[in-house]
Amino acid sequence: MSPFLQKLQAAVRRNRSLVCVGLDPDPDRFPPAVRDAADPIFAFNRAIIEQTADAVCAYKLNLAFYEVAGPAGLEALERTVKAIPDDVPVIADAKRGDIDNTARMYARALFEYYRFDAATVNPYMGRDAVQPFLDYRDRGVFVLCLNSNPTAHDIQHLTVDGRPLYLRIAEMVNEWNAHGNCGLVVGATNAESLGGIRAIVPEMPLLIPGIGAQGGDLQTVVAHGTDRNGEGILVNASRSILYAAAADFATAARSAVITLRDEMNRLRSVR
Amino acid sequence: MSPFLQKLQAAVRRNRSLVCVGLDPDPDRFPPAVRDAADPIFAFNRAIIEQTADAVCAYKLNLAFYEVAGPAGLEALERTVKAIPDDVPVIADAKRGDIDNTARMYARALFEYYRFDAATVNPYMGRDAVQPFLDYRDRGVFVLCLNSNPTAHDIQHLTVDGRPLYLRIAEMVNEWNAHGNCGLVVGATNAESLGGIRAIVPEMPLLIPGIGAQGGDLQTVVAHGTDRNGEGILVNASRSILYAAAADFATAARSAVITLRDEMNRLRSVR
Repeated sequence: MSPFLQKLQAAVRRNRSLVCVGLDPDPDRFPPAVRDAADPIFAFNRAIIEQTADAVCAYKLNLAFYEVAGPAGLEALERTVKAIPDDVPVIADAKRGDIDNTARMYARALFEYYRFDAATVNPYMGRDAVQPFLDYRDRGVFVLCLNSNPTAHDIQHLTVDGRPLYLRIAEMVNEWNAHGNCGLVVGATNAESLGGIRAIVPEMPLLIPGIGAQGGDLQTVVAHGTDRNGEGILVNASRSILYAAAADFATAARSAVITLRDEMNRLRSVR
Repeated sequence: MSPFLQKLQAAVRRNRSLVCVGLDPDPDRFPPAVRDAADPIFAFNRAIIEQTADAVCAYKLNLAFYEVAGPAGLEALERTVKAIPDDVPVIADAKRGDIDNTARMYARALFEYYRFDAATVNPYMGRDAVQPFLDYRDRGVFVLCLNSNPTAHDIQHLTVDGRPLYLRIAEMVNEWNAHGNCGLVVGATNAESLGGIRAIVPEMPLLIPGIGAQGGDLQTVVAHGTDRNGEGILVNASRSILYAAAADFATAARSAVITLRDEMNRLRSVR
């Protein structure tokens, strides 16, 4: 098992959790006390991390929410990654994809500068664009496969050899997985898509956004997404956790994580 | 004609140039004098800009080369964009793509914070992921269509309805072009691909990397890529310009730009 998968599995079992919290800070929704902090984004994230680190299997940081604040946003990103306990995996949701020498720069930025444990990447340019990430054998690489946004069908569902493109992507990533450090990003949509992908990659971790503010069906995800151990999925929730309540936002976030975690554990028969 | 296309056309005609210089700084290749500057990336870029701004139609900054240096790299990015004369378009080669609320953040970062004139985006998630960029009617949006890297065929050449996927992408982007601010990224590969794409989008600007260090054939690009005015392509060159010579790198860059510009003008019969 690759080092990233080991770290992920240890967190899943220690915290009995398949919940990944998306740290996608939106300053417009911060409580007044946080807004007045010297570094509001970091202050917000730190409060969320302190309240949830023992109940999640991972954190995911979407880089757009940091880049929008310019270089200072990237400083908040850097501080946030450092504030997460070492035994909780941190995923850069960056969806990068570029030719090999450029992809190497992106991988170096995310894995060496910011020291993320894993990153999301876009497969549209083919294996070249992914390989520099895969070459970091101790990190995880989640390749976009199927998304849950309304227009994902524009391209991902196009028919290739009689089947939707996203299944071809799952097969390709399976072939790219020489170091055992690949995963897939799979939008929580329906049992058929999820089951079709899981059949192609029986042991790969699936990063599943689309629970909470984006809709989605927890029962379907657990029934059709988990691997034979009842693990292998990271269900990401962001807005439904971060903004669960305006007052005492951090403790409300903790409650929301635990509710989601326990509901998933009930569905997969884990106490 | 959309404001971005107007600005681009004005630069093309004023400087009689279809050359886009890729400002992709690699500190390992900087001359010693630049390495000792307070902000080496910015010092290098400024020297290149001063020597080439009257001979290019645009600059393209690949964000990976800045992100790899952390927040300080983004500060160099910010300073570089500001140092480019207002009448020369600046393209963020970011290849972003994410669901709509996230894409909005990426668009805001690139168009509002850094004030780029245009950006490259990835179409894999469909129209949702591109629309927030298109909504900036005064900016340009270059959608990845066909790339020149060895594994671009993994996905871009898959057969959909009897034709390669990249032609379907060109058709989609044509449909997305309600504000007239779309372009395509087309790797310089061969006459057939380029001509096939140009037939679908007769008036759209094509951003063409792959000249210089990446190989490619200038004559094919001019013959099959240009629009009916002998314009409509931005031929990007980066390493072959930036590192044309170790000594007097900036004047060597100028010479390399002018050689490329004049060769393209000869091929399209412009003096």
